Amino acid sequence: MSTGRGKRPRFREITSGNNPLLKVFRRALAEGTTREGWLAVEGPLLVEEALRAGHRASIQSVIVSEEVSERWQELVAHLPAEAEVARVSERLFRQMAQTETPQGIAALVELRRPSLDSILREPGVLLLVACGLQDPGNLGTIVRSAQAFGASALITLEETVSPFNPKALRASAGAIFHVPTFAGEKLDAVLKKLHAARVRIVAADRHSPSRISDSDLRGPLAILIGQEAAGLPPEIAGQAHMLLSIPIRAGMDSLNAATAASIILYEAARQRGFVY
Amino acid sequence: MSTGRGKRPRFREITSGNNPLLKVFRRALAEGTTREGWLAVEGPLLVEEALRAGHRASIQSVIVSEEVSERWQELVAHLPAEAEVARVSERLFRQMAQTETPQGIAALVELRRPSLDSILREPGVLLLVACGLQDPGNLGTIVRSAQAFGASALITLEETVSPFNPKALRASAGAIFHVPTFAGEKLDAVLKKLHAARVRIVAADRHSPSRISDSDLRGPLAILIGQEAAGLPPEIAGQAHMLLSIPIRAGMDSLNAATAASIILYEAARQRGFVY
Repeated sequence: MSTGRGKRPRFREITSGNNPLLKVFRRALAEGTTREGWLAVEGPLLVEEALRAGHRASIQSVIVSEEVSERWQELVAHLPAEAEVARVSERLFRQMAQTETPQGIAALVELRRPSLDSILREPGVLLLVACGLQDPGNLGTIVRSAQAFGASALITLEETVSPFNPKALRASAGAIFHVPTFAGEKLDAVLKKLHAARVRIVAADRHSPSRISDSDLRGPLAILIGQEAAGLPPEIAGQAHMLLSIPIRAGMDSLNAATAASIILYEAARQRGFVY
Repeated sequence: MSTGRGKRPRFREITSGNNPLLKVFRRALAEGTTREGWLAVEGPLLVEEALRAGHRASIQSVIVSEEVSERWQELVAHLPAEAEVARVSERLFRQMAQTETPQGIAALVELRRPSLDSILREPGVLLLVACGLQDPGNLGTIVRSAQAFGASALITLEETVSPFNPKALRASAGAIFHVPTFAGEKLDAVLKKLHAARVRIVAADRHSPSRISDSDLRGPLAILIGQEAAGLPPEIAGQAHMLLSIPIRAGMDSLNAATAASIILYEAARQRGFVY
Protein backbone atom coordinates (compact mmCIF):
# COMPACT_ATOMS: atom_id res chain seq x y z
CA MET A 1 0.00 0.00 0.00
CA SER A 2 1.47 3.35 -0.96
CA THR A 3 0.84 6.06 1.59
CA GLY A 4 0.81 9.78 1.06
CA ARG A 5 2.89 10.24 4.23
CA GLY A 6 4.22 13.77 4.35
CA LYS A 7 2.15 14.97 1.43
CA ARG A 8 -1.08 16.66 2.38
CA PRO A 9 -3.91 15.30 0.26
CA ARG A 10 -5.96 17.88 -1.55
CA PHE A 11 -9.46 18.28 -0.10
CA ARG A 12 -12.38 17.93 -2.41
CA GLU A 13 -14.99 20.50 -1.34
CA ILE A 14 -18.58 19.29 -0.98
CA THR A 15 -21.15 22.05 -0.65
CA SER A 16 -24.47 20.32 -1.34
CA GLY A 17 -26.38 18.17 1.12
CA ASN A 18 -27.47 16.11 -1.90
CA ASN A 19 -23.92 15.09 -2.78
CA PRO A 20 -23.89 11.30 -3.31
CA LEU A 21 -20.79 10.69 -1.15
CA LEU A 22 -22.40 12.62 1.70
CA LYS A 23 -25.53 10.50 1.33
CA VAL A 24 -23.49 7.30 1.40
CA PHE A 25 -21.73 8.46 4.59
CA ARG A 26 -24.98 9.54 6.26
CA ARG A 27 -26.66 6.17 5.69
CA ALA A 28 -23.55 4.18 6.57
CA LEU A 29 -22.89 6.10 9.81
CA ALA A 30 -26.46 5.30 10.90
CA GLU A 31 -26.23 1.61 9.96
CA GLY A 32 -22.55 0.90 10.59
CA THR A 33 -21.65 -0.25 7.07
CA THR A 34 -22.08 0.72 3.43
CA ARG A 35 -23.82 -1.63 1.01
CA GLU A 36 -20.47 -3.12 0.00
CA GLY A 37 -19.70 -3.82 3.67
CA TRP A 38 -17.22 -1.02 4.36
CA LEU A 39 -17.32 0.18 7.97
CA ALA A 40 -18.38 3.77 8.64
CA VAL A 41 -16.67 5.34 11.63
CA GLU A 42 -16.66 8.77 13.27
CA GLY A 43 -14.02 10.58 15.30
CA PRO A 44 -10.24 10.83 15.18
CA LEU A 45 -9.64 7.85 17.49
CA LEU A 46 -11.38 5.35 15.25
CA VAL A 47 -9.86 6.84 12.08
CA GLU A 48 -6.39 6.63 13.66
CA GLU A 49 -6.98 3.02 14.69
CA ALA A 50 -8.03 2.19 11.11
CA LEU A 51 -4.74 3.76 9.91
CA ARG A 52 -2.71 1.80 12.48
CA ALA A 53 -4.38 -1.43 11.37
CA GLY A 54 -3.07 -0.85 7.82
CA HIS A 55 -2.70 -4.52 6.93
CA ARG A 56 -6.26 -5.29 7.97
CA ALA A 57 -8.08 -2.05 7.23
CA SER A 58 -7.99 0.15 4.16
CA ILE A 59 -9.42 3.67 4.43
CA GLN A 60 -11.43 4.42 1.30
CA SER A 61 -13.00 7.84 1.94
CA VAL A 62 -12.74 10.53 4.57
CA ILE A 63 -14.96 13.53 5.21
CA VAL A 64 -13.78 16.34 7.49
CA SER A 65 -15.62 19.37 8.72
CA GLU A 66 -14.19 22.75 7.61
CA GLU A 67 -14.15 23.94 11.20
CA VAL A 68 -11.66 21.28 12.30
CA SER A 69 -9.85 20.40 9.07
CA GLU A 70 -6.68 22.08 10.38
CA ARG A 71 -6.81 20.06 13.60
CA TRP A 72 -6.91 16.72 11.76
CA GLN A 73 -4.39 17.87 9.14
CA GLU A 74 -1.67 15.48 10.31
CA LEU A 75 -4.09 12.58 10.45
CA VAL A 76 -5.24 13.39 6.92
CA ALA A 77 -1.62 13.69 5.75
CA HIS A 78 -1.04 10.06 6.77
CA LEU A 79 -3.97 8.70 4.78
CA PRO A 80 -3.16 6.42 1.86
CA ALA A 81 -2.85 8.32 -1.41
CA GLU A 82 -5.78 6.38 -2.89
CA ALA A 83 -8.16 7.58 -0.18
CA GLU A 84 -10.69 10.18 -1.24
CA VAL A 85 -10.72 13.16 1.14
CA ALA A 86 -13.62 15.60 1.14
CA ARG A 87 -14.38 18.68 3.18
CA VAL A 88 -17.83 19.94 4.14
CA SER A 89 -19.24 22.79 6.19
CA GLU A 90 -19.81 22.22 9.88
CA ARG A 91 -23.56 22.33 9.20
CA LEU A 92 -23.39 19.54 6.60
CA PHE A 93 -21.11 17.50 8.87
CA ARG A 94 -23.61 17.73 11.71
CA GLN A 95 -26.41 16.62 9.40
CA MET A 96 -24.39 13.58 8.41
CA ALA A 97 -22.97 12.66 11.82
CA GLN A 98 -24.69 10.26 14.22
CA THR A 99 -22.85 11.21 17.40
CA GLU A 100 -24.20 13.86 19.74
CA THR A 101 -21.00 15.91 19.67
CA PRO A 102 -19.48 15.26 16.24
CA GLN A 103 -15.70 15.58 16.15
CA GLY A 104 -15.51 16.60 12.51
CA ILE A 105 -13.95 13.54 10.90
CA ALA A 106 -15.51 10.37 9.52
CA ALA A 107 -14.25 7.57 7.31
CA LEU A 108 -15.32 4.56 5.28
CA VAL A 109 -13.01 1.62 5.87
CA GLU A 110 -12.71 -1.62 3.95
CA LEU A 111 -11.73 -4.57 6.15
CA ARG A 112 -9.37 -7.22 4.86
CA ARG A 113 -9.25 -10.47 6.77
CA PRO A 114 -7.71 -13.87 6.37
CA SER A 115 -10.11 -16.74 5.66
CA LEU A 116 -11.57 -18.61 8.64
CA ASP A 117 -9.94 -21.76 7.29
CA SER A 118 -6.47 -20.21 7.44
CA ILE A 119 -7.14 -18.88 10.96
CA LEU A 120 -8.23 -22.35 12.08
CA ARG A 121 -4.87 -23.72 10.98
CA GLU A 122 -3.00 -21.45 13.47
CA PRO A 123 -1.46 -23.64 16.22
CA GLY A 124 -2.96 -21.97 19.32
CA VAL A 125 -6.08 -20.61 17.69
CA LEU A 126 -8.37 -18.85 20.19
CA LEU A 127 -11.84 -18.03 18.90
CA LEU A 128 -14.77 -16.29 20.47
CA VAL A 129 -18.23 -17.23 19.21
CA ALA A 130 -21.03 -14.84 20.21
CA CYS A 131 -24.36 -16.68 20.18
CA GLY A 132 -27.30 -14.30 20.50
CA LEU A 133 -25.82 -11.27 22.30
CA GLN A 134 -28.15 -8.29 21.82
CA ASP A 135 -26.33 -5.30 23.31
CA PRO A 136 -23.97 -3.63 20.81
CA GLY A 137 -21.95 -2.05 23.63
CA ASN A 138 -21.34 -5.50 25.10
CA LEU A 139 -20.29 -6.93 21.74
CA GLY A 140 -17.92 -4.00 21.08
CA THR A 141 -16.36 -4.40 24.53
CA ILE A 142 -15.84 -8.10 23.77
CA VAL A 143 -14.05 -7.23 20.51
CA ARG A 144 -11.76 -4.89 22.49
CA SER A 145 -10.96 -7.64 25.01
CA ALA A 146 -10.51 -10.16 22.17
CA GLN A 147 -7.78 -7.98 20.69
CA ALA A 148 -6.22 -7.36 24.12
CA PHE A 149 -5.96 -11.06 24.97
CA GLY A 150 -4.80 -12.25 21.57
CA ALA A 151 -7.95 -13.89 20.23
CA SER A 152 -7.49 -15.07 16.65
CA ALA A 153 -10.98 -14.12 15.49
CA LEU A 154 -14.52 -13.31 16.51
CA ILE A 155 -17.48 -15.15 15.06
CA THR A 156 -21.04 -13.96 15.60
CA LEU A 157 -23.95 -16.28 14.84
CA GLU A 158 -27.23 -15.33 13.18
CA GLU A 159 -29.59 -13.45 15.51
CA THR A 160 -26.68 -11.78 17.28
CA VAL A 161 -26.27 -8.01 17.18
CA SER A 162 -23.95 -6.93 14.38
CA PRO A 163 -20.34 -6.25 15.41
CA PHE A 164 -20.48 -3.46 12.80
CA ASN A 165 -23.38 -1.70 14.55
CA PRO A 166 -22.26 1.93 15.19
CA LYS A 167 -22.44 1.48 18.99
CA ALA A 168 -20.45 -1.74 18.78
CA LEU A 169 -17.79 -0.01 16.64
CA ARG A 170 -17.45 2.77 19.23
CA ALA A 171 -17.29 0.33 22.16
CA SER A 172 -14.61 -1.69 20.33
CA ALA A 173 -12.39 1.44 20.44
CA GLY A 174 -10.96 0.44 17.06
CA ALA A 175 -10.27 -3.19 17.97
CA ILE A 176 -12.70 -4.17 15.20
CA PHE A 177 -9.99 -3.21 12.67
CA HIS A 178 -7.54 -5.66 14.24
CA VAL A 179 -9.58 -8.76 15.12
CA PRO A 180 -10.76 -10.74 12.08
CA THR A 181 -14.55 -10.84 12.42
CA PHE A 182 -17.04 -13.19 10.79
CA ALA A 183 -20.57 -11.92 11.31
CA GLY A 184 -23.98 -13.58 11.05
CA GLU A 185 -22.66 -17.12 10.56
CA LYS A 186 -24.77 -20.27 10.75
CA LEU A 187 -24.17 -22.46 13.83
CA ASP A 188 -23.98 -25.73 11.89
CA ALA A 189 -21.41 -24.41 9.41
CA VAL A 190 -19.26 -23.00 12.23
CA LEU A 191 -19.40 -26.24 14.25
CA LYS A 192 -18.48 -28.27 11.18
CA LYS A 193 -15.36 -26.16 10.60
CA LEU A 194 -14.38 -26.26 14.28
CA HIS A 195 -14.77 -30.04 14.43
CA ALA A 196 -12.82 -30.51 11.20
CA ALA A 197 -9.98 -28.35 12.58
CA ARG A 198 -10.05 -30.24 15.91
CA VAL A 199 -10.71 -27.05 17.87
CA ARG A 200 -11.99 -27.74 21.38
CA ILE A 201 -15.32 -26.00 22.04
CA VAL A 202 -16.11 -24.68 25.53
CA ALA A 203 -19.29 -22.91 26.53
CA ALA A 204 -19.77 -20.36 29.29
CA ASP A 205 -22.44 -21.77 31.63
CA ARG A 206 -22.92 -20.17 35.03
CA HIS A 207 -24.25 -23.43 36.49
CA SER A 208 -21.38 -25.70 35.48
CA PRO A 209 -19.33 -27.18 38.36
CA SER A 210 -16.20 -26.99 36.14
CA ARG A 211 -14.40 -23.72 36.74
CA ILE A 212 -12.44 -21.87 34.06
CA SER A 213 -9.55 -21.56 36.52
CA ASP A 214 -9.28 -25.36 36.96
CA SER A 215 -9.70 -26.21 33.27
CA ASP A 216 -7.02 -26.29 30.59
CA LEU A 217 -7.67 -23.43 28.17
CA ARG A 218 -4.50 -23.90 26.16
CA GLY A 219 -4.42 -25.34 22.64
CA PRO A 220 -6.93 -24.68 19.85
CA LEU A 221 -10.04 -23.35 21.57
CA ALA A 222 -13.41 -21.80 20.71
CA ILE A 223 -15.38 -20.10 23.49
CA LEU A 224 -19.16 -19.89 23.08
CA ILE A 225 -20.83 -16.92 24.77
CA GLY A 226 -24.62 -16.71 25.08
CA GLN A 227 -27.21 -14.00 25.28
CA GLU A 228 -27.18 -11.41 28.11
CA ALA A 229 -30.18 -12.61 30.10
CA ALA A 230 -30.85 -16.16 28.92
CA GLY A 231 -27.30 -17.41 28.40
CA LEU A 232 -26.69 -20.11 25.80
CA PRO A 233 -29.67 -22.07 24.48
CA PRO A 234 -29.32 -25.76 25.49
CA GLU A 235 -29.10 -26.89 21.85
CA ILE A 236 -25.98 -24.76 21.39
CA ALA A 237 -24.43 -25.50 24.81
CA GLY A 238 -25.00 -29.20 24.05
CA GLN A 239 -22.55 -28.92 21.15
CA ALA A 240 -19.67 -27.89 23.42
CA HIS A 241 -17.02 -30.37 24.56
CA MET A 242 -17.17 -28.75 27.99
CA LEU A 243 -19.30 -26.32 29.99
CA LEU A 244 -17.32 -23.92 32.16
CA SER A 245 -18.30 -21.44 34.84
CA ILE A 246 -16.66 -18.39 36.35
CA PRO A 247 -16.68 -18.99 40.12
CA ILE A 248 -18.79 -16.15 41.48
CA ARG A 249 -20.42 -15.65 44.86
CA ALA A 250 -23.34 -18.03 45.50
CA GLY A 251 -26.84 -16.65 45.09
CA MET A 252 -25.75 -14.27 42.36
CA ASP A 253 -27.22 -14.71 38.97
CA SER A 254 -24.46 -13.69 36.63
CA LEU A 255 -21.89 -11.21 35.44
CA ASN A 256 -22.34 -8.73 32.63
CA ALA A 257 -21.98 -10.71 29.37
CA ALA A 258 -19.01 -8.67 28.12
CA THR A 259 -17.33 -8.98 31.52
CA ALA A 260 -17.80 -12.76 31.51
CA ALA A 261 -16.37 -13.14 27.98
CA SER A 262 -13.43 -10.87 28.87
CA ILE A 263 -12.61 -12.84 32.03
CA ILE A 264 -12.61 -16.14 30.13
CA LEU A 265 -10.29 -14.58 27.52
CA TYR A 266 -8.04 -13.27 30.34
CA GLU A 267 -7.93 -16.71 31.96
CA ALA A 268 -7.05 -18.35 28.63
CA ALA A 269 -4.30 -15.75 28.03
CA ARG A 270 -3.00 -16.25 31.58
CA GLN A 271 -2.73 -20.00 31.12
CA ARG A 272 -0.96 -19.41 27.79
CA GLY A 273 1.61 -17.18 29.54
CA PHE A 274 0.30 -14.00 27.93
CA VAL A 275 2.18 -14.88 24.73
CA TYR A 276 0.46 -13.04 21.91
CA MET B 1 -37.98 -6.69 59.86
CA SER B 2 -41.53 -8.07 59.76
CA THR B 3 -42.64 -9.10 56.30
CA GLY B 4 -46.15 -9.31 54.99
CA ARG B 5 -45.36 -12.64 53.32
CA GLY B 6 -48.58 -14.29 52.21
CA LYS B 7 -50.75 -11.26 52.94
CA ARG B 8 -51.45 -9.03 49.98
CA PRO B 9 -50.86 -5.41 50.96
CA ARG B 10 -53.71 -3.07 50.21
CA PHE B 11 -53.01 -0.73 47.32
CA ARG B 12 -53.44 2.94 47.87
CA GLU B 13 -54.91 4.40 44.65
CA ILE B 14 -53.28 7.54 43.28
CA THR B 15 -55.24 9.27 40.55
CA SER B 16 -53.68 12.73 40.33
CA GLY B 17 -50.43 13.56 38.55
CA ASN B 18 -49.90 16.17 41.28
CA ASN B 19 -49.80 13.60 44.06
CA PRO B 20 -46.73 14.30 46.23
CA LEU B 21 -45.53 10.66 46.30
CA LEU B 22 -45.73 10.51 42.51
CA LYS B 23 -43.69 13.70 42.30
CA VAL B 24 -41.07 12.29 44.65
CA PHE B 25 -40.82 9.12 42.54
CA ARG B 26 -40.63 11.07 39.27
CA ARG B 27 -37.74 13.23 40.46
CA ALA B 28 -35.94 10.36 42.16
CA LEU B 29 -36.20 8.04 39.14
CA ALA B 30 -34.60 10.77 37.03
CA GLU B 31 -31.82 11.49 39.52
CA GLY B 32 -31.32 8.05 41.08
CA THR B 33 -32.02 9.02 44.68
CA THR B 34 -34.50 10.96 46.81
CA ARG B 35 -33.35 13.91 48.90
CA GLU B 36 -32.87 11.62 51.91
CA GLY B 37 -30.67 9.35 49.80
CA TRP B 38 -33.09 6.49 49.16
CA LEU B 39 -32.48 4.76 45.83
CA ALA B 40 -35.19 4.92 43.18
CA VAL B 41 -35.39 1.85 40.98
CA GLU B 42 -37.64 0.65 38.18
CA GLY B 43 -38.60 -2.83 37.03
CA PRO B 44 -39.31 -6.15 38.77
CA LEU B 45 -35.68 -7.36 38.65
CA LEU B 46 -34.33 -4.46 40.70
CA VAL B 47 -37.27 -4.53 43.12
CA GLU B 48 -36.75 -8.29 43.61
CA GLU B 49 -33.03 -7.77 44.23
CA ALA B 50 -33.84 -5.11 46.84
CA LEU B 51 -36.15 -7.64 48.54
CA ARG B 52 -33.47 -10.37 48.44
CA ALA B 53 -30.95 -7.97 49.99
CA GLY B 54 -33.23 -7.56 53.01
CA HIS B 55 -30.44 -7.00 55.55
CA ARG B 56 -28.90 -4.25 53.46
CA ALA B 57 -31.90 -2.73 51.69
CA SER B 58 -35.25 -1.68 53.06
CA ILE B 59 -38.06 -1.01 50.58
CA GLN B 60 -39.96 2.10 51.67
CA SER B 61 -42.46 2.75 48.88
CA VAL B 62 -43.64 0.97 45.78
CA ILE B 63 -45.75 2.23 42.89
CA VAL B 64 -47.30 -0.20 40.44
CA SER B 65 -49.19 0.45 37.26
CA GLU B 66 -52.83 -0.75 37.21
CA GLU B 67 -52.22 -2.57 33.98
CA VAL B 68 -49.66 -4.92 35.51
CA SER B 69 -50.58 -4.90 39.20
CA GLU B 70 -51.81 -8.52 38.88
CA ARG B 71 -48.53 -9.62 37.34
CA TRP B 72 -46.43 -8.27 40.20
CA GLN B 73 -48.93 -9.43 42.83
CA GLU B 74 -46.61 -12.05 44.31
CA LEU B 75 -43.73 -9.61 44.42
CA VAL B 76 -45.93 -7.07 46.19
CA ALA B 77 -47.13 -9.74 48.63
CA HIS B 78 -43.54 -10.25 49.77
CA LEU B 79 -42.94 -6.59 50.55
CA PRO B 80 -42.37 -5.65 54.19
CA ALA B 81 -45.59 -4.66 55.96
CA GLU B 82 -44.22 -1.15 56.59
CA ALA B 83 -43.77 -0.48 52.87
CA GLU B 84 -46.26 1.89 51.32
CA VAL B 85 -47.78 0.44 48.12
CA ALA B 86 -49.60 2.67 45.68
CA ARG B 87 -51.28 2.01 42.35
CA VAL B 88 -51.56 4.43 39.44
CA SER B 89 -52.97 4.34 35.93
CA GLU B 90 -50.70 3.21 33.12
CA ARG B 91 -50.66 6.80 31.85
CA LEU B 92 -49.44 8.21 35.17
CA PHE B 93 -46.87 5.45 35.46
CA ARG B 94 -45.48 6.29 32.03
CA GLN B 95 -45.24 9.96 32.98
CA MET B 96 -43.25 9.04 36.07
CA ALA B 97 -41.04 6.33 34.56
CA GLN B 98 -37.63 7.06 33.04
CA THR B 99 -37.19 3.86 31.06
CA GLU B 100 -38.27 3.63 27.45
CA THR B 101 -40.47 0.59 28.03
CA PRO B 102 -41.67 0.92 31.64
CA GLN B 103 -42.43 -2.41 33.31
CA GLY B 104 -45.01 -1.03 35.69
CA ILE B 105 -43.25 -1.26 39.03
CA ALA B 106 -40.91 1.15 40.82
CA ALA B 107 -39.62 1.42 44.37
CA LEU B 108 -37.79 3.68 46.79
CA VAL B 109 -35.19 1.75 48.76
CA GLU B 110 -33.24 2.80 51.84
CA LEU B 111 -29.77 1.31 51.97
CA ARG B 112 -28.28 0.15 55.26
CA ARG B 113 -24.58 -0.41 55.36
CA PRO B 114 -21.95 -1.17 57.92
CA SER B 115 -19.48 1.64 58.66
CA LEU B 116 -16.32 1.80 56.57
CA ASP B 117 -14.35 1.38 59.80
CA SER B 118 -16.02 -1.94 60.58
CA ILE B 119 -15.51 -3.13 56.99
CA LEU B 120 -11.82 -2.24 57.21
CA ARG B 121 -11.48 -4.54 60.22
CA GLU B 122 -12.55 -7.61 58.16
CA PRO B 123 -9.54 -9.94 57.80
CA GLY B 124 -9.39 -10.24 53.99
CA VAL B 125 -11.01 -6.93 53.16
CA LEU B 126 -11.14 -6.29 49.40
CA LEU B 127 -12.05 -2.74 48.39
CA LEU B 128 -12.55 -1.11 45.04
CA VAL B 129 -11.91 2.63 44.84
CA ALA B 130 -13.24 4.33 41.68
CA CYS B 131 -11.26 7.51 41.01
CA GLY B 132 -12.87 9.64 38.31
CA LEU B 133 -14.87 7.13 36.28
CA GLN B 134 -17.43 9.01 34.17
CA ASP B 135 -19.58 6.34 32.53
CA PRO B 136 -22.48 5.20 34.74
CA GLY B 137 -22.79 1.93 32.81
CA ASN B 138 -19.15 1.16 33.56
CA LEU B 139 -19.57 1.95 37.25
CA GLY B 140 -22.71 -0.19 37.51
CA THR B 141 -20.94 -3.09 35.79
CA ILE B 142 -18.10 -2.73 38.31
CA VAL B 143 -20.57 -2.92 41.22
CA ARG B 144 -21.96 -6.13 39.70
CA SER B 145 -18.48 -7.64 39.42
CA ALA B 146 -17.62 -6.41 42.93
CA GLN B 147 -20.51 -8.42 44.33
CA ALA B 148 -19.67 -11.45 42.16
CA PHE B 149 -16.04 -11.59 43.33
CA GLY B 150 -16.68 -10.89 46.98
CA ALA B 151 -15.52 -7.30 47.30
CA SER B 152 -16.19 -5.91 50.78
CA ALA B 153 -17.18 -2.43 49.59
CA LEU B 154 -17.03 0.11 46.80
CA ILE B 155 -15.73 3.60 47.38
CA THR B 156 -16.14 6.35 44.78
CA LEU B 157 -14.12 9.55 45.06
CA GLU B 158 -15.35 13.05 44.37
CA GLU B 159 -15.67 13.84 40.65
CA THR B 160 -16.64 10.25 39.90
CA VAL B 161 -20.06 9.45 38.42
CA SER B 162 -22.56 8.55 41.14
CA PRO B 163 -23.08 4.82 41.73
CA PHE B 164 -26.72 5.77 42.35
CA ASN B 165 -27.12 7.30 38.89
CA PRO B 166 -30.15 5.55 37.25
CA LYS B 167 -27.98 4.03 34.48
CA ALA B 168 -25.46 2.79 37.06
CA LEU B 169 -28.27 1.22 39.11
CA ARG B 170 -29.56 -0.63 36.03
CA ALA B 171 -26.08 -1.80 34.99
CA SER B 172 -25.45 -3.07 38.54
CA ALA B 173 -28.40 -5.46 38.06
CA GLY B 174 -29.25 -5.04 41.74
CA ALA B 175 -25.71 -5.60 43.05
CA ILE B 176 -25.85 -2.06 44.46
CA PHE B 177 -28.16 -3.40 47.20
CA HIS B 178 -25.58 -5.97 48.27
CA VAL B 179 -22.22 -4.19 48.08
CA PRO B 180 -21.73 -1.48 50.75
CA THR B 181 -21.08 1.69 48.78
CA PHE B 182 -19.48 4.93 49.93
CA ALA B 183 -19.97 7.64 47.32
CA GLY B 184 -18.23 10.97 46.70
CA GLU B 185 -15.49 10.48 49.31
CA LYS B 186 -12.40 12.65 49.61
CA LEU B 187 -9.13 11.01 48.56
CA ASP B 188 -7.17 12.14 51.61
CA ALA B 189 -9.74 10.85 54.07
CA VAL B 190 -9.94 7.48 52.31
CA LEU B 191 -6.15 7.10 52.18
CA LYS B 192 -5.86 7.94 55.86
CA LYS B 193 -8.33 5.20 56.77
CA LEU B 194 -6.67 2.66 54.47
CA HIS B 195 -3.23 3.42 55.91
CA ALA B 196 -4.52 3.25 59.49
CA ALA B 197 -6.11 -0.15 58.79
CA ARG B 198 -2.90 -1.38 57.07
CA VAL B 199 -4.73 -2.10 53.83
CA ARG B 200 -2.38 -2.51 50.88
CA ILE B 201 -3.22 -0.11 48.04
CA VAL B 202 -2.68 -1.18 44.43
CA ALA B 203 -3.42 0.94 41.38
CA ALA B 204 -4.33 -0.22 37.90
CA ASP B 205 -1.72 1.23 35.54
CA ARG B 206 -1.49 -0.10 32.02
CA HIS B 207 2.21 0.82 31.76
CA SER B 208 3.41 -0.95 34.90
CA PRO B 209 5.81 -3.89 34.36
CA SER B 210 4.27 -5.64 37.39
CA ARG B 211 1.47 -7.94 36.28
CA ILE B 212 -1.62 -8.67 38.36
CA SER B 213 -1.07 -12.37 37.71
CA ASP B 214 2.43 -12.32 39.23
CA SER B 215 1.53 -10.15 42.24
CA ASP B 216 0.07 -11.29 45.53
CA LEU B 217 -3.50 -9.97 45.75
CA ARG B 218 -4.37 -11.78 48.98
CA GLY B 219 -4.74 -10.05 52.34
CA PRO B 220 -6.33 -6.64 52.97
CA LEU B 221 -6.36 -4.86 49.62
CA ALA B 222 -7.73 -1.71 48.02
CA ILE B 223 -7.73 -1.48 44.22
CA LEU B 224 -7.68 2.02 42.68
CA ILE B 225 -9.33 2.33 39.26
CA GLY B 226 -8.94 5.50 37.19
CA GLN B 227 -10.93 7.33 34.59
CA GLU B 228 -11.91 5.68 31.28
CA ALA B 229 -9.60 7.55 28.92
CA ALA B 230 -6.94 9.13 31.12
CA GLY B 231 -6.48 6.41 33.75
CA LEU B 232 -5.38 7.42 37.25
CA PRO B 233 -3.93 10.91 37.75
CA PRO B 234 -0.26 10.61 38.83
CA GLU B 235 -0.98 12.23 42.21
CA ILE B 236 -3.41 9.42 43.03
CA ALA B 237 -1.35 6.59 41.50
CA GLY B 238 1.62 7.89 43.51
CA GLN B 239 -0.24 7.04 46.71
CA ALA B 240 -0.42 3.33 45.86
CA HIS B 241 1.96 0.79 47.33
CA MET B 242 2.16 -0.85 43.93
CA LEU B 243 1.18 -0.19 40.31
CA LEU B 244 -0.14 -3.24 38.50
CA SER B 245 -0.97 -3.92 34.87
CA ILE B 246 -3.15 -6.45 33.10
CA PRO B 247 -0.88 -8.09 30.50
CA ILE B 248 -2.51 -7.21 27.20
CA ARG B 249 -1.18 -7.40 23.65
CA ALA B 250 1.53 -4.83 22.88
CA GLY B 251 0.52 -1.74 20.94
CA MET B 252 -2.96 -1.73 22.44
CA ASP B 253 -3.99 1.17 24.51
CA SER B 254 -6.26 -0.32 27.13
CA LEU B 255 -9.28 -2.35 28.07
CA ASN B 256 -12.72 -0.99 28.85
CA ALA B 257 -12.53 0.44 32.41
CA ALA B 258 -15.23 -1.87 33.79
CA THR B 259 -13.58 -4.86 32.14
CA ALA B 260 -10.21 -3.95 33.66
CA ALA B 261 -11.66 -3.56 37.17
CA SER B 262 -13.57 -6.83 36.82
CA ILE B 263 -10.47 -8.75 35.69
CA ILE B 264 -8.45 -7.46 38.66
CA LEU B 265 -11.29 -8.50 40.99
CA TYR B 266 -11.39 -11.93 39.30
CA GLU B 267 -7.62 -12.32 39.68
CA ALA B 268 -7.82 -11.37 43.39
CA ALA B 269 -10.68 -13.83 43.91
CA ARG B 270 -8.77 -16.57 42.05
CA GLN B 271 -5.71 -16.10 44.26
CA ARG B 272 -7.96 -16.21 47.32
CA GLY B 273 -9.40 -19.55 46.16
CA PHE B 274 -12.80 -18.08 45.31
CA VAL B 275 -13.72 -18.14 49.00
CA TYR B 276 -16.42 -15.56 49.51
